[in-house]
Amino acid sequence: DQGPPGSSETPQEVVDQLIRRSMEAKTHAYCPYSNFRVGAALLTHDDKVFKGCNVENACYNLGVCAERNAIAKAVSEGYRSFRAIAIASDLNDQFIYPCGGCRQFMREFGPSWEVYPTKSDGSHVKMDVSQLLPMSFGPEDLHQHATQ
Amino acid sequence: DQGPPGSSETPQEVVDQLIRRSMEAKTHAYCPYSNFRVGAALLTHDDKVFKGCNVENACYNLGVCAERNAIAKAVSEGYRSFRAIAIASDLNDQFIYPCGGCRQFMREFGPSWEVYPTKSDGSHVKMDVSQLLPMSFGPEDLHQHATQ
Amino acid sequence: DQGPPGSSETPQEVVDQLIRRSMEAKTHAYCPYSNFRVGAALLTHDDKVFKGCNVENACYNLGVCAERNAIAKAVSEGYRSFRAIAIASDLNDQFIYPCGGCRQFMREFGPSWEVYPTKSDGSHVKMDVSQLLPMSFGPEDLHQHATQ
Amino acid sequence: DQGPPGSSETPQEVVDQLIRRSMEAKTHAYCPYSNFRVGAALLTHDDKVFKGCNVENACYNLGVCAERNAIAKAVSEGYRSFRAIAIASDLNDQFIYPCGGCRQFMREFGPSWEVYPTKSDGSHVKMDVSQLLPMSFGPEDLHQHATQ
Ligand SMILES: [Zn+2]
Ligand SMILES: [Zn+2]
Ligand SMILES: [Zn+2]
Ligand SMILES: [Zn+2]
Repeated sequence: DQGPPGSSETPQEVVDQLIRRSMEAKTHAYCPYSNFRVGAALLTHDDKVFKGCNVENACYNLGVCAERNAIAKAVSEGYRSFRAIAIASDLNDQFIYPCGGCRQFMREFGPSWEVYPTKSDGSHVKMDVSQLLPMSFGPEDLHQHATQ
Repeated sequence: DQGPPGSSETPQEVVDQLIRRSMEAKTHAYCPYSNFRVGAALLTHDDKVFKGCNVENACYNLGVCAERNAIAKAVSEGYRSFRAIAIASDLNDQFIYPCGGCRQFMREFGPSWEVYPTKSDGSHVKMDVSQLLPMSFGPEDLHQHATQ
Repeated sequence: DQGPPGSSETPQEVVDQLIRRSMEAKTHAYCPYSNFRVGAALLTHDDKVFKGCNVENACYNLGVCAERNAIAKAVSEGYRSFRAIAIASDLNDQFIYPCGGCRQFMREFGPSWEVYPTKSDGSHVKMDVSQLLPMSFGPEDLHQHATQ
Repeated sequence: DQGPPGSSETPQEVVDQLIRRSMEAKTHAYCPYSNFRVGAALLTHDDKVFKGCNVENACYNLGVCAERNAIAKAVSEGYRSFRAIAIASDLNDQFIYPCGGCRQFMREFGPSWEVYPTKSDGSHVKMDVSQLLPMSFGPEDLHQHATQ
């Protein structure tokens, strides 16, 4: 029994594997406008991995980020309980952190799961959703509104 | 040889099957705010099907539609050449047409592939992307801008 | 008495003036990523004009189009009844048509008001929202869902 | 001379006034789907105030938040240097924090300006953009990418 999401540390070898999957995901990026490839690999609580890439649009504002792509894909297959997400780009000297929109999209599925921004050499930092989006609101807060 | 995307009519039995897949997709919708379930099933030119559902967010504006989900998912697996998409909802008396954002997202991958809005009983209409988004701009038009 | 929105033709001099305002609006565009400036000028039913420009973001997907900017601005000042919108860009040889997302955003405030895509020399075409977004759904359709 | 944005503390009376303006802004909210009214008031470095409200859409995902509305409005009038933003909702017992998308939209115009989430009675907390969006990326980081 693994308990609720986030209740136990993800083993380093699993994290390393997830990072490799995020790099694979990046190869499918459709980004003719930015030429900025991003990949994401999402690990569900029951150890399934979903890979997403950024998908841009001629109307820039309508594109989809890699992280949101991976999460929406998982949801479309019936998964809503997530353990970790790794994010890859071609940046050599900077970790690729998720945009604010993706942080909120992650938050929808809980505040306390793991996020692994990486550099192109695979080095990474470990964070969790609530560190990236402090003082957030989520599904619970809208319920509070509805019952006020 | 099937020729370029959209060059031949999709057989009715394939369309019917695609519509059934869009209804299956709908069952995974995450829509606690609207309670409006939508599913989409996307057929690639080489006969692979990708299913998407709507994934809402406590910040309404950050959600992902079913159609965009299905397309982004296909792109994340390396597919960019599409033949048809079917869209399902729980509306009994109305066909579920894609929103303008999804029409633009479809348009990115060509103006002339098939769209099948349906009612909950599976009845459908056949349209193509350019009928739903006339006078559109796409990737080619931005290139024109860049070289002006 | 002017009747309901869209009930009478907008005089050509008013349209020409609106187009000039959309060109002015363009000068404030914040578009360091695309370098594609867009301006919009929105005419309310009681003859007030709101000017919008595109506002891009380092996360491309989170930017705001000129048309949505102008409409949101009008709503923020208490206006929801629109007669016409003009759209300007730096394209010399093409009319600048709104993206699908903006067409849907326009549609929220009625299907039958005027849209004027222009070229950089001020030449224009006249369309209405429903021509740009046929078979659309709007606020009424969600009500239908709610009462089904 | 006021120095660069954020270089000096905003006086309490100015903050209180800004909060009142955010409450006024809320009255124009167009939110037939969520019934969750939000207002924002944005103070530029040269003491101009822009008010925004949320503007929802039948396609939920295409709506505009109050904060993004206020900022896009200011940009459309030629302002890009911001000192503070106040945010108001009808929540009595919770401060209304910005969504992740709006945090990223704020970040585009600098990491260190003030954000004032409020409760319906006008009580507030003081934060800055970087506290709400730690480890963010902005315009500078994309430049870094381009020159790599
Ligand atoms: Zn993102
Ligand atoms: Zn859509
Ligand atoms: Zn647009
Ligand atoms: Zn927001």
